[in-house]
Amino acid sequence: MKRDSNLKNDLIIKTLLGEATERTPVWMMRQAGRYLPEYIKLREKYSFFERCQNPELACEITLQPIEIIGVDAAILFSDILVVPQAMGMEVQLVEKFGPLLPQPIKTQMDIQRIRVPDVNDALHYVFDAIRLIKQELNGRVPLIGFAGAPWTLLCYMVQGKGSKTFDEAKAFCYQQPELAHQLLQMITDTSIAYLKGQVAAGADLVQIFDSWGGLLGKKDFEEFSLQYIRQIVAALKKGIPTIIFAKGAWSSLPEMAATGAHGLGIDWCIEPETARRLADSAPATEGRTVALQGNFDPAKLLSPIPVIEKEVKEMLKNFGKGAHIANLGHGILPNVPVDHAKAFVNTVKEF
Amino acid sequence: MKRDSNLKNDLIIKTLLGEATERTPVWMMRQAGRYLPEYIKLREKYSFFERCQNPELACEITLQPIEIIGVDAAILFSDILVVPQAMGMEVQLVEKFGPLLPQPIKTQMDIQRIRVPDVNDALHYVFDAIRLIKQELNGRVPLIGFAGAPWTLLCYMVQGKGSKTFDEAKAFCYQQPELAHQLLQMITDTSIAYLKGQVAAGADLVQIFDSWGGLLGKKDFEEFSLQYIRQIVAALKKGIPTIIFAKGAWSSLPEMAATGAHGLGIDWCIEPETARRLADSAPATEGRTVALQGNFDPAKLLSPIPVIEKEVKEMLKNFGKGAHIANLGHGILPNVPVDHAKAFVNTVKEF
Repeated sequence: MKRDSNLKNDLIIKTLLGEATERTPVWMMRQAGRYLPEYIKLREKYSFFERCQNPELACEITLQPIEIIGVDAAILFSDILVVPQAMGMEVQLVEKFGPLLPQPIKTQMDIQRIRVPDVNDALHYVFDAIRLIKQELNGRVPLIGFAGAPWTLLCYMVQGKGSKTFDEAKAFCYQQPELAHQLLQMITDTSIAYLKGQVAAGADLVQIFDSWGGLLGKKDFEEFSLQYIRQIVAALKKGIPTIIFAKGAWSSLPEMAATGAHGLGIDWCIEPETARRLADSAPATEGRTVALQGNFDPAKLLSPIPVIEKEVKEMLKNFGKGAHIANLGHGILPNVPVDHAKAFVNTVKEF
Repeated sequence: MKRDSNLKNDLIIKTLLGEATERTPVWMMRQAGRYLPEYIKLREKYSFFERCQNPELACEITLQPIEIIGVDAAILFSDILVVPQAMGMEVQLVEKFGPLLPQPIKTQMDIQRIRVPDVNDALHYVFDAIRLIKQELNGRVPLIGFAGAPWTLLCYMVQGKGSKTFDEAKAFCYQQPELAHQLLQMITDTSIAYLKGQVAAGADLVQIFDSWGGLLGKKDFEEFSLQYIRQIVAALKKGIPTIIFAKGAWSSLPEMAATGAHGLGIDWCIEPETARRLADSAPATEGRTVALQGNFDPAKLLSPIPVIEKEVKEMLKNFGKGAHIANLGHGILPNVPVDHAKAFVNTVKEF
């Protein structure tokens, strides 16, 4: 297991490796994002892909919440859709609409248009950003690398845009399962190389985001999502702590724990106690208790600060001591006041 | 308990009352809807509210799936948003956009604009439609009445439109809980009168749709949703079988069972066995096992017919014999071929 000896704050690493810590670590999904006025300023000047692809900009944005909010980890500023882009698909991020992939995948012919790329070529800008961020962080906190889960990337690559139900993506899997598996394997191979590249460049841990895992029933989640996540975790877990966040896929927590991942993200719709019981029903990996990450309702950060403080304390009590990384149950909302985000983080730190 | 002695097919009533049946009953949420060419024809000629408010049209649409698909129950053609409309809000249904409430509720002043209406005045057209449908059904199958759960209606009344997260509605509840409870109670009072009116007009059972219940953590679901659903069920359950469908709110299945509702809808993201265990963990009401309703993945109706048949049989096996009403886990999708919907229904009937 790689471990950066220069880290001054390694709470999250220790928690993921099952070691005792003086307190619960805390970070927030989308912590480098639209609720920060400093981010909005850069957003007005540069397009999304400029911000991703320019290592200096990506570094500046990644560091903002460390300096402004005081979280215990940095997460690389990027997007899960850089992988479909690197595989040869056109990806647009349209203001107020979200992602748009104008030529979605529907047939075998469409799959022939894409490829498993050389990540050192297609995604070198991410690795450059990571090297710069690690240098600028100078050991203050660990850096989280990440990738989308293959299923979630398939959702966008087939549906071509965001959706509540991703029924075109699901229909693709149900109607043409062989094609779906061919595509999922290509995404998996790319993601493994991509995450290994992130680790080589300096990422201290990685998280796999399966934002749409909760759209699948348990059997389909195994077939179209988890078997590929398992490959990714297997390729990485000996070298680096790994976290799986499959939003809404609570019923597969035992199977996710059994992958040997070090942490599992959960949302606010599952009680910490229930999540712990489900995760612990899998055989422990190397005698280690899997850490749980979450699960504050992002909309609750819109409550008055005293309510936030009360509810955060209650959440911490419900998780109990150890094996917990405090986080939201999904990304922070753009309309959250900065001092509310700080109240969330500080309440965890002072608990 | 009211029971229409003229019913030739009372499978669903018997199942909800815990009586034995020769086979599992089946219907589909949104069965009177856009996947039927006969519905599309009427949709091209009449606006949504014309279709709802004209008893002859509502009757014709309600009966279509009985005649074309052969389901074991009719469900009133209407929309949950007729209640906010009856309470004094403007409700538009905009093509390809969904519901739009141009003057959403944000303040105490806004609440003063709405009222608990006399349902016999504001919603008489629904009761007229029910009387006509019951006459035209002539006992072939039972008629399901319905209403939205107060929380789900609040979502639209505060957010003003559809949303993935309904964060404005949630923020309203978290920032102004007293106002939220005032609004929820007004919706509840209206809904009780509305559902009692449906029963008086002839509805044989009722379903409460909490489409957005799954956006709330367990404690918030109790506070902002379930305590109001409980009032509705309490007001109705002695007179008529009641079903609660709170999509995604699986962790509150024990509490929903404890309301004394006769049936609980579940989606495809929870295993039937798990749902059964959770529902049965509540004390049985009058010695009756609560029926479970669901839970086929609506997107799976886009699979080839042999796959549908295989998966429906597997679902039926997983639910086991009795205390089950076969249904989808959410509304049928508009792009489902009619013969796929028939395959779903016929597989249940022939199992």
